Amino acid sequence: MLRIIFFLFLSVALHAQPNLFDKKQLRTFFDTSLLNGQAYKWLDYLTNRIGSRLSGSLGAERAVAWTKAELDALGLDRVYLQPVKVPKWVRGAKEFALIETAPGVTFNVPITALGGSVATPSVGLKAFVVEVKGIEELKALGREQIEGKIVFFNRPMQADLISTFQAYSGCVDQRYSGAKEASAYGAVGVIVRSMNLRLDDLPHTGAMSYGDQDVSKRIPAAAISTNAAEKLSKLLKLEPNLKFLFRQQCKTYPDVWSHNVIGEITGSEFPNEIIVVGGHLDSWDLGDGAHDDGAGVVQSMEVLRLFKATGYKPKRTIRVVLFMNEENGLRGGNAYADNALLTGERHIFALESDAGGFTPRGFSFNCSDEEFAQVESWKPLFKPYLIHYFEQGGSGADIRPLKNKYNVLAGLRPDSQRYFDHHHAENDTFDAVNKRELELGAATMTSLIYLFDTYGLAVLSDNTFAR
Amino acid sequence: MLRIIFFLFLSVALHAQPNLFDKKQLRTFFDTSLLNGQAYKWLDYLTNRIGSRLSGSLGAERAVAWTKAELDALGLDRVYLQPVKVPKWVRGAKEFALIETAPGVTFNVPITALGGSVATPSVGLKAFVVEVKGIEELKALGREQIEGKIVFFNRPMQADLISTFQAYSGCVDQRYSGAKEASAYGAVGVIVRSMNLRLDDLPHTGAMSYGDQDVSKRIPAAAISTNAAEKLSKLLKLEPNLKFLFRQQCKTYPDVWSHNVIGEITGSEFPNEIIVVGGHLDSWDLGDGAHDDGAGVVQSMEVLRLFKATGYKPKRTIRVVLFMNEENGLRGGNAYADNALLTGERHIFALESDAGGFTPRGFSFNCSDEEFAQVESWKPLFKPYLIHYFEQGGSGADIRPLKNKYNVLAGLRPDSQRYFDHHHAENDTFDAVNKRELELGAATMTSLIYLFDTYGLAVLSDNTFAR
Repeated sequence: MLRIIFFLFLSVALHAQPNLFDKKQLRTFFDTSLLNGQAYKWLDYLTNRIGSRLSGSLGAERAVAWTKAELDALGLDRVYLQPVKVPKWVRGAKEFALIETAPGVTFNVPITALGGSVATPSVGLKAFVVEVKGIEELKALGREQIEGKIVFFNRPMQADLISTFQAYSGCVDQRYSGAKEASAYGAVGVIVRSMNLRLDDLPHTGAMSYGDQDVSKRIPAAAISTNAAEKLSKLLKLEPNLKFLFRQQCKTYPDVWSHNVIGEITGSEFPNEIIVVGGHLDSWDLGDGAHDDGAGVVQSMEVLRLFKATGYKPKRTIRVVLFMNEENGLRGGNAYADNALLTGERHIFALESDAGGFTPRGFSFNCSDEEFAQVESWKPLFKPYLIHYFEQGGSGADIRPLKNKYNVLAGLRPDSQRYFDHHHAENDTFDAVNKRELELGAATMTSLIYLFDTYGLAVLSDNTFAR
Repeated sequence: MLRIIFFLFLSVALHAQPNLFDKKQLRTFFDTSLLNGQAYKWLDYLTNRIGSRLSGSLGAERAVAWTKAELDALGLDRVYLQPVKVPKWVRGAKEFALIETAPGVTFNVPITALGGSVATPSVGLKAFVVEVKGIEELKALGREQIEGKIVFFNRPMQADLISTFQAYSGCVDQRYSGAKEASAYGAVGVIVRSMNLRLDDLPHTGAMSYGDQDVSKRIPAAAISTNAAEKLSKLLKLEPNLKFLFRQQCKTYPDVWSHNVIGEITGSEFPNEIIVVGGHLDSWDLGDGAHDDGAGVVQSMEVLRLFKATGYKPKRTIRVVLFMNEENGLRGGNAYADNALLTGERHIFALESDAGGFTPRGFSFNCSDEEFAQVESWKPLFKPYLIHYFEQGGSGADIRPLKNKYNVLAGLRPDSQRYFDHHHAENDTFDAVNKRELELGAATMTSLIYLFDTYGLAVLSDNTFAR
């Protein structure tokens, strides 16, 4: 009998079931976020007053200073900047492009230089076009078909996938590696269909890389709007010998210093167990970075503000990290993880919001099956808020470098249907974010952080393992 | 042993578990909707070419003719119009309103007449204002405080409710009955805060009713934008003796004839078991009725088109019904149900989409616990599509009159966060609807209709009960 009671006790201790008190606490977080939230006002300032925040830009530095000041004003236990050296790529004058089907017969099309690309000659680059559906087709065509031409990567995002992020993953190699691969076959430039499921006129930028390719081999790369991609493809069928001309004046400068912005509430019982919540402060330069990732930034700040506003005093150290340079380098995420390793800081959990400010559906967890079982036991607490998605999977680019076998990482998973309509394009602006959706996300994140703070990592709950 | 086998068989027959074939069938519906959908093109036409469709208007009649022609073109077994007599209320010249804090000191504010309201005198109506939070407060104030004044109903939608429809239900009595109630205490007019969770400048119309109130007692009622409601409330605190002036020239004409639009695929095995899917064809006159309920109309049409396009031949009769006059009379829904009763048609299931074209989350079912158990057994089939909400509750206004104890009704439940930003206002337009979200909704509806077609109502599966 005693043995049974002991096992019962052990079971309760290990799986520490959420209770009525947790239920009330979540309700308090949601009520406060929806009735007296700060996230939307913060996002208004970040997008409409500061605007785009590409690493190394004035906007990025203003965002560092302003978010630090806002965190200071919350009365946290510690707010500080963590130096990070970041790349500095500058777009320069607005890009220009046209399709020439015959001498003097031209159609202007909207393009945008890919982040990290080299410029074209100042008069522009003009060449025949070869359309491919991807890197494999490029290889199949070979040097003979490619040399001297502009390669047009036109594999669309797959519309029948329910997760638009999965559709993005299935296409983004064209943007990231297309120029490097095409150059190896003698291409002179690359045009990539925008990573957008919608047919519209906005080109979407994003990171590309030449890897360790010799500077002399690097060719310019730009994204073209989906409507223009459709048009170019149709015109190529009518006139295979059409020419494409584009001009971009982008340039990479030497690295500059910037910062991750960090604020924390020190834990009352286990101050050495750190829980991180964050998003990335940098954005692309075309819109205002409202969904990517202004939303994640203000939601992460809101987690700590909601703890303060509701009088919740965490047992563990809760730290908001606003990472610099997710978009074109991940220097902030790497610097943060390197520092944590150096100083021996013990991170038990990290959560990133970097999938837009849309209605939250749940979380993806990078963790073991045992850890996931613990997390799943909390799922019923979220049902009143229509949060239903608890799955094992990825987390977020900035926190991924923190992963070790003693911690759990997670990513907020909002509704993804509209995300790529705005991603890295000039319509990623404040008006595309809905106040309630943003606030629901902040409350959902706060609730999960609260549960990890309350129950810790049950799977390793003896607090004795060495780092 | 035989007995066990018999019970096993009975159990399988009764609960008819969905299988791998169902799984594939759902995948086919989703793929076809997302890759080769028609709903979005239809919605484009309905909203941008036809536009608003208030009962009795030219737009409504054009919508009847056009949807009938589109259904005809699908090659259904039967397409027809069902006559319905509908009210005809016409807004007239654009409304005008101002707040006068002192003689000559005025602020213009955006208002819109409530549907069914009487006009003001042609020079407008000007009076002192009394602000109340609802009908209870009106009664507490009594005739002395109300007589000769304009009553300003200013109870906002409750932002801490997760379902915005619940927030709407908690407020809409002010709009629907406010004028009738206020008139009983001698009020001369009514201004109602728009049913909108967002603070903006758009007034939202919607139905109101005088019930059987004598014509001489009827007072004009208008909605005011949420920003203007906030402003009026603040100004009233500074200047309780301010006056409000508004002018509207709306008018009710005698009823006119219109139609429900109906199309069906005759069932191959049980043609007398009817399954209905529908939305309402009429809309308010301010926007284009894209979410309310253009989305439901085109999604319902798409259900039958997807059956055709995928070669699925239903066992039961699948009928799309585009109801007329949901917004201000429900005449179409009532006429349809009356006719079903008269002709002895047996409806086993009806599904309505009238909650916007946003990402589908699931369904609400008006049914018994036993029937709900059957429906819940299908839930796992929907998980790949992130459809998680299966709850007992309401269905849709147009199909509710069909309810009897031998059928199940359901309503599509899309994400509700943005719905009331657009509901009954001039921004309920095509651009507010996302193509993928609309298509996911159509596929989700098709999947549920398919399952009811395949398994019928297991609870009453003997097909022998009398109507």
